[in-house]
Amino acid sequence: MAVPPPTHPRRLLPLSLGLFQGALLLFFAFFVTYDEPLARAEDAKVVANQLYGIFPFFQDIQVMLVVGLGLLLTFLPRYGLSVLTHNFLLLNFSTQWALVLQGLLHYFHHGQVHLDLHNLLTAELAAVTVLISVGAVLGRTSPCQLLLVATCEVPVYLASEWTIVTHLGVLDVGGTITIHVFSCYFGLGVSKALFGAARRPMHPKETPTPRSDLLSLVGTLILWVFWPSFVAILCQPGDAQHRAILNTLLAMSASTVTTVVASSLLERDGKLSPSHLQNGSLAGGVAIGAVADMAMQPVAALALGSLSAVVCVLGFRFLTPLLVRKLMLQDQCGIHNLHGLPGILGAVASAVVILVASKDTSGSRLSQVSPTGGNASEVAWGDGRAGRQALCQVAGLAVAIGGSLLAGLLAGAALRLPCLARPPEQLSFDDLLYFKIQDQAESPGLGGTAEEGALALKEQV
Amino acid sequence: MAVPPPTHPRRLLPLSLGLFQGALLLFFAFFVTYDEPLARAEDAKVVANQLYGIFPFFQDIQVMLVVGLGLLLTFLPRYGLSVLTHNFLLLNFSTQWALVLQGLLHYFHHGQVHLDLHNLLTAELAAVTVLISVGAVLGRTSPCQLLLVATCEVPVYLASEWTIVTHLGVLDVGGTITIHVFSCYFGLGVSKALFGAARRPMHPKETPTPRSDLLSLVGTLILWVFWPSFVAILCQPGDAQHRAILNTLLAMSASTVTTVVASSLLERDGKLSPSHLQNGSLAGGVAIGAVADMAMQPVAALALGSLSAVVCVLGFRFLTPLLVRKLMLQDQCGIHNLHGLPGILGAVASAVVILVASKDTSGSRLSQVSPTGGNASEVAWGDGRAGRQALCQVAGLAVAIGGSLLAGLLAGAALRLPCLARPPEQLSFDDLLYFKIQDQAESPGLGGTAEEGALALKEQV
Amino acid sequence: MAVPPPTHPRRLLPLSLGLFQGALLLFFAFFVTYDEPLARAEDAKVVANQLYGIFPFFQDIQVMLVVGLGLLLTFLPRYGLSVLTHNFLLLNFSTQWALVLQGLLHYFHHGQVHLDLHNLLTAELAAVTVLISVGAVLGRTSPCQLLLVATCEVPVYLASEWTIVTHLGVLDVGGTITIHVFSCYFGLGVSKALFGAARRPMHPKETPTPRSDLLSLVGTLILWVFWPSFVAILCQPGDAQHRAILNTLLAMSASTVTTVVASSLLERDGKLSPSHLQNGSLAGGVAIGAVADMAMQPVAALALGSLSAVVCVLGFRFLTPLLVRKLMLQDQCGIHNLHGLPGILGAVASAVVILVASKDTSGSRLSQVSPTGGNASEVAWGDGRAGRQALCQVAGLAVAIGGSLLAGLLAGAALRLPCLARPPEQLSFDDLLYFKIQDQAESPGLGGTAEEGALALKEQV
Repeated sequence: MAVPPPTHPRRLLPLSLGLFQGALLLFFAFFVTYDEPLARAEDAKVVANQLYGIFPFFQDIQVMLVVGLGLLLTFLPRYGLSVLTHNFLLLNFSTQWALVLQGLLHYFHHGQVHLDLHNLLTAELAAVTVLISVGAVLGRTSPCQLLLVATCEVPVYLASEWTIVTHLGVLDVGGTITIHVFSCYFGLGVSKALFGAARRPMHPKETPTPRSDLLSLVGTLILWVFWPSFVAILCQPGDAQHRAILNTLLAMSASTVTTVVASSLLERDGKLSPSHLQNGSLAGGVAIGAVADMAMQPVAALALGSLSAVVCVLGFRFLTPLLVRKLMLQDQCGIHNLHGLPGILGAVASAVVILVASKDTSGSRLSQVSPTGGNASEVAWGDGRAGRQALCQVAGLAVAIGGSLLAGLLAGAALRLPCLARPPEQLSFDDLLYFKIQDQAESPGLGGTAEEGALALKEQV
Repeated sequence: MAVPPPTHPRRLLPLSLGLFQGALLLFFAFFVTYDEPLARAEDAKVVANQLYGIFPFFQDIQVMLVVGLGLLLTFLPRYGLSVLTHNFLLLNFSTQWALVLQGLLHYFHHGQVHLDLHNLLTAELAAVTVLISVGAVLGRTSPCQLLLVATCEVPVYLASEWTIVTHLGVLDVGGTITIHVFSCYFGLGVSKALFGAARRPMHPKETPTPRSDLLSLVGTLILWVFWPSFVAILCQPGDAQHRAILNTLLAMSASTVTTVVASSLLERDGKLSPSHLQNGSLAGGVAIGAVADMAMQPVAALALGSLSAVVCVLGFRFLTPLLVRKLMLQDQCGIHNLHGLPGILGAVASAVVILVASKDTSGSRLSQVSPTGGNASEVAWGDGRAGRQALCQVAGLAVAIGGSLLAGLLAGAALRLPCLARPPEQLSFDDLLYFKIQDQAESPGLGGTAEEGALALKEQV
Repeated sequence: MAVPPPTHPRRLLPLSLGLFQGALLLFFAFFVTYDEPLARAEDAKVVANQLYGIFPFFQDIQVMLVVGLGLLLTFLPRYGLSVLTHNFLLLNFSTQWALVLQGLLHYFHHGQVHLDLHNLLTAELAAVTVLISVGAVLGRTSPCQLLLVATCEVPVYLASEWTIVTHLGVLDVGGTITIHVFSCYFGLGVSKALFGAARRPMHPKETPTPRSDLLSLVGTLILWVFWPSFVAILCQPGDAQHRAILNTLLAMSASTVTTVVASSLLERDGKLSPSHLQNGSLAGGVAIGAVADMAMQPVAALALGSLSAVVCVLGFRFLTPLLVRKLMLQDQCGIHNLHGLPGILGAVASAVVILVASKDTSGSRLSQVSPTGGNASEVAWGDGRAGRQALCQVAGLAVAIGGSLLAGLLAGAALRLPCLARPPEQLSFDDLLYFKIQDQAESPGLGGTAEEGALALKEQV
């Protein structure tokens, strides 16, 4: 199979990326410094202990994003190198871009920008939204298009997060609303605007093989294991963090069992669908984020986990085909089922928990740290305040959905620029387009000896 | 290849699992709460520090069980999705089931059940026994049968663990006797009762390919890296925990080198057997559990690691074929060689170390925390006490073997119920039976373009 | 394909390894003990906190070496089992060998040798050099040859490390000079002396497949995620460690983006080369080691990361082919591009940072702990002292390159001994030579049913 002549401008990617790196260097050179080293020994000990508190969580999240999420996307059998690489590149690019934007905002308020692990973490959370969103258009987009998605999404995320958490005061320690719901509808908006109303036939390279499903399932397992760190990293140390970890563990355990139940009931012959399993077992982690550190009982976490798995599996079975048929909406990885539906469920659950908790114990404690860090607010509430807070949660959800859909549609329209080199349909879902590799179809298994290999090649021709 | 009509009741799995999830929700709703949040700031700091002490260990163990153990079992080339999924499902189901049983026991003594990370950990350790046991019958059992194994094994484990650790006072911080030996003989009992005296020919899908061996070896490496956390998590913080980590590292290092030596000496041409390597390098970790935190010198850990690797490799080479021939005993993953023999070795070693240590230093310190947590007992011993303790270790070993074998045989007999849908021999070791996937035999490599794929399919027919 | 008769002495490996294990046991029995357990409760708490400080970092490094580095080397499609196993065996053997040598040195000065996690860590760092060096001769060497490399390299490393860090006082917290540069030129020396001036044609099994490239990329990602722990583990807790982590994160992020830019600009059609990506994204981690904890600004880390990625990619594209053509120098994994060039860059950068920092702030603080641990030295410097230190850095680099090249050439000459059983060219890069496995060329895909499998075999013949 001959690779078609590269009619699209291959140099756009390295040039724009290179330019960005240069600009980043300049920005860092002029504006960003580390904190002054602390002189006193006691302070050093405090810094060390803070580091030991946050660093293992941070590493867990890095494993999730770089290895776990990357592997989860390798379900496309001929596109593994590309998804791993694009995921990796987008994570780094978006984090750097978020650092710049955060830094600029901070600079206009406080002068010099001080960099620490906490800044890096919040920048990385902005990057997470990009990694989720591009799942909707995976395989049919060029790296340039993906970078443009990142360029558009990060500032919108920062604005949306500020509105939801700082302005509205929404409680969402695990990013259910600010990260998952936001990035899902942004991605769907991009997909709709990019692909328009054209109905696409199933691409032959789109079907997972058992082997690519296996690797993807390993990615799910890695995400599943480290998810509690993702939810709990921004909780207040102590009880709230402990509770967040336990709630996440319970929710994800219930999700896993319920996914098997739901998938097995829905599929013919009681077989399991790999994609249900790959996504459903994580749905509980998405939904629990908004309520993980609240004063609720273990049963609520279990119920939320089960429910979100049911919603996720039903979404794959019925809603995704419906969206394709009625709205011509492509959602390659099913992000609406993993991040959208369970996210909405989690947001609604947070409103309910706030209302119930305020009745349970007059003056219940709902502790929360905003994902942008800083202003922790321990609050003791009466009924009226709880009602307002519950309304805020729902308002936050509405802002996240509305803002991201609109911004996503705009970003998706920009992605139609011809210079961005959307891959031709024939070469979609194929590593060959982006990597200097042997053609997989031509590769003679793993060859025997040299002679055998040559022979096999000859016979194929 | 057409899939045979599903004559077995495909709905049993989701219905029974769904029922269980419902019952779990009810149980949690009525009986389980979190601890009351602590009001004082100093207490919060203590909670945070405790969490930072245990949580990284806990995460390491999660990686071992979900990713490492799952991958280790993927040596069956066409059964990878199934083993990963069954392992994952069993872990979650068994942990939840252990939480219920532990909770019930606790409820009858103290009323309300308080859930924390430590409860979850001990429940997960109960689940580990199930994951090990099912290795004996891997590939020839249905998910329903595996769930029945879990249902039977968890309560027996809890009883056995109580007898051995709390009643007999056996020292076994790393679960050598209570987890490894117990689960091995339970699994062998199940296998014997389930498969009876029928001699089974080698199944064509049973033979690993180099690629499935590779993935399985990656699983071994993940288990190997995190094993020290498994052994040390329940040790007393401080010297005992430090020593347990060092002993485990030394034992596993010696195991690895010795496995290469032993396998290379035993195999024709001095080649290595992948299965020796996959199991032998972990044997030291199994054996060291009972003595890891005791007052012994580094050389003992090295010697125990080497010896257990030798025993494991010899077991694979000579004992497993013998058991098949003489007792018609199937042991698919060789759990007897990895968990049984090294476990017995470790138990005997613990008795020897106790006797030697008591002579070495009058009043030696043997620190120990029971795996169920709680009653730490730092003890200073004379000769007489040491003799009694050494006897206890041996008695504990006997209880673990006898009890588990008997219970395993009974559970295995229950597994013969026809409604549990044992897979037909032809479809054993095959993902096709449980997953909605493309047939791997039909999949044309990774296909070329659509046309090529269609062509390849046609040519195959 | 029939395996050729084993003319080479297959028993050398197990016999020599077995002998070594026996000698190790004797050495440990006579000379090595654990520290005495501490009696007081406060001390126990201090020990526990020290352990919690270092153990997560230690585990991260274990994952890197055992899983990450192993997978990175699996880019050879038919040699995966061998590279994973050889890497694993060499890590264990070299660590034990380093423990013996360190112990002997210590014994002659202080009598009894006390073992703790810190000793183990420094021994493991010695093993890292071996794992890197053998990358140059991967696939064309027997396990016996690799063990001889380890036997020679560990003592030379210990001497070189002592000279560079203790004697010359070079600052190199992340091992840029002592580990990366040293091991690179040792490996190149071995390769040159072993393979001589013979020009080797490309071996058919040497070409990566998309699938082996994918697994290798997963290895890169694992190394990338945990690299900050590798650089920061020996830093002084507190600010220095925090800064080292941040610098490493920034450098590696810049490396990743820059690698994509550079690879895309250099390759035809703007495609990416998998090997550039696998190595270039790690180059920043190699280079940053010598300066990670120094008083420099974030921009320096970004710039160093970008520059090292450029150097690495250029090395792959131009220098490696040149070395093959002009010097007949084989470098299978491109260790010169990943460890050599970025290492030299990092060493030079450390001299520059020292000079600049001394001018920036009179009395700048450069904190450093020597990799062998122990003597921490916080220093406040004037201009003259800075000049001397910068010279020292360059001198250390020269010592590392010169000493390792010379020692490597000698070790490589020893590797030509015929009894070491270099694999025949025909069986290079092939697991079949070392593992009792099914031939991959003969394996009928993953077979269908038994009948199908037999049929497929027949048709192949």
